[in-house]
Amino acid sequence: MSIDLRDFRVEPDTSVRLARRATRIDPLYQDRKDYEERLEAGTRRLSELQQKLYAHDRHSLLVIFQAMDAAGKDGAIRHVMSGVNPQGCQVFSFKHPSEQELDHDFLWRTQSALPERGRIGIFNRSYYEEVLIVRVRPEILASQKLPDAARDDKSIWKKRFRSIVNSETHLHDNGTRVVKIFLHISKKEQCKRLIARIDDAEKNWKFSPADIEQRAAWDDYMKAYQACFEATSTREAPWYIVPADDKKNARLIVSQILVDTLGALDMHYPKITPAQRREMLAIRRRLASELE
Amino acid sequence: MSIDLRDFRVEPDTSVRLARRATRIDPLYQDRKDYEERLEAGTRRLSELQQKLYAHDRHSLLVIFQAMDAAGKDGAIRHVMSGVNPQGCQVFSFKHPSEQELDHDFLWRTQSALPERGRIGIFNRSYYEEVLIVRVRPEILASQKLPDAARDDKSIWKKRFRSIVNSETHLHDNGTRVVKIFLHISKKEQCKRLIARIDDAEKNWKFSPADIEQRAAWDDYMKAYQACFEATSTREAPWYIVPADDKKNARLIVSQILVDTLGALDMHYPKITPAQRREMLAIRRRLASELE
Repeated sequence: MSIDLRDFRVEPDTSVRLARRATRIDPLYQDRKDYEERLEAGTRRLSELQQKLYAHDRHSLLVIFQAMDAAGKDGAIRHVMSGVNPQGCQVFSFKHPSEQELDHDFLWRTQSALPERGRIGIFNRSYYEEVLIVRVRPEILASQKLPDAARDDKSIWKKRFRSIVNSETHLHDNGTRVVKIFLHISKKEQCKRLIARIDDAEKNWKFSPADIEQRAAWDDYMKAYQACFEATSTREAPWYIVPADDKKNARLIVSQILVDTLGALDMHYPKITPAQRREMLAIRRRLASELE
Repeated sequence: MSIDLRDFRVEPDTSVRLARRATRIDPLYQDRKDYEERLEAGTRRLSELQQKLYAHDRHSLLVIFQAMDAAGKDGAIRHVMSGVNPQGCQVFSFKHPSEQELDHDFLWRTQSALPERGRIGIFNRSYYEEVLIVRVRPEILASQKLPDAARDDKSIWKKRFRSIVNSETHLHDNGTRVVKIFLHISKKEQCKRLIARIDDAEKNWKFSPADIEQRAAWDDYMKAYQACFEATSTREAPWYIVPADDKKNARLIVSQILVDTLGALDMHYPKITPAQRREMLAIRRRLASELE
């Protein structure tokens, strides 16, 4: 039951049909205990790699999560990342853009949230909303204060895809590894989870009637996602379509994606020069004499 | 072996003598296993409280760590906070201020790093450096581009304390709880830990000859800390002086400080109005019919 990530990666320049991509696969674990052990092993490995990332201080990792409501983004972030040093991990959630943010281009607001060298940055939703919900609901685009010509440009989505790909290529060139994860659930599974949110009083606050509006436009969203994956999954910044009807499976796959991506980096602890070493040893002698 | 935080809190308007404050106390745990269980119980409780903080979305918690080098700030943050949802926790480290930051007042650069409502923000070092290292090393103050009159003002430290207290009061008034933690180690314990950093090749990269310079000014630092605690420990934003020669003890105390501070807040899950409830149940019926 080892995980082959090629099953989930979107190869560049291939067509994507979400209806043909599994939302459920055979369990990657035997039982709850086995799942917990596997997840913990992943977190431990991730934690080690993050420490090395921090010490090496040359690369960073940006992980983007996108999904329909109730697909389990928050839970995946919590379960996969809890146990990793919070000092090396930053999570940003992007909601409705503010007036100030709308006064800038659509990539602007995420810039200041990019992970510093040595850190893992997680975007819970991202600039991809700009080619998903904004594409499905034209009234949002209409409110975005774009010049008329830009807004009415028939190739606006193509241009947005190009902006995104170019921006991610730029990040890659400068040391940031970018991976993008789509948690893929079925419409039926979402239905069950929304009902559960209504039935569990403690989860009621998470429920928003807006979730239902987006559900009504399910097919439009799937089309927008497909176009997005086809245009923006690159060798440098691949998309992974993760079957997410089983939350445990999804978390194990997400964990593996992060471990493999960090594991592929050439990282080492900073080297000490012979001169630094000599200085250190001189200091050590002075310190040791204090303890005598 | 329950922890009474009054032992460590600095009461407002009292004098502080660090030499009389313990750097080591009797272990708060029986053995390693007992320590791990206690720490885990603390993290679990912290995790629950953080979820409530997030759902309630009215308060935030700012935790400031200050200490001499090798006192264990990074380790305390890692061990106490690992296991808390990284989505609800943000850690910022403040190093040498940039040119841009020096073009602003000394509180400016931390403003944008303050935790949003519903989140725990951790400052690994903070604006307190401005009344500690900057006070001990006048050449730093000289380089800060202050107007001559402000720089040469004899009451500059008093005024900086006032700015800090007023800023923290303002945060408190607007929902942020502020706690400040000083990890208190002895000069001898620091000596041992610096030697260990030199002896462990994997830790060499953490060693900086600058640590030794600060160690040489130990007594000046202690005086600066004392003045700082006396002036800035308030009912709204207390300082805790945590004995830190034993790292495990220190982590258990830090965990308790966070748990007690969050536990004292009046938090509840957002309430649903009867109209919202009716709307939810209507949606539930529609969803359930899809599953038939």
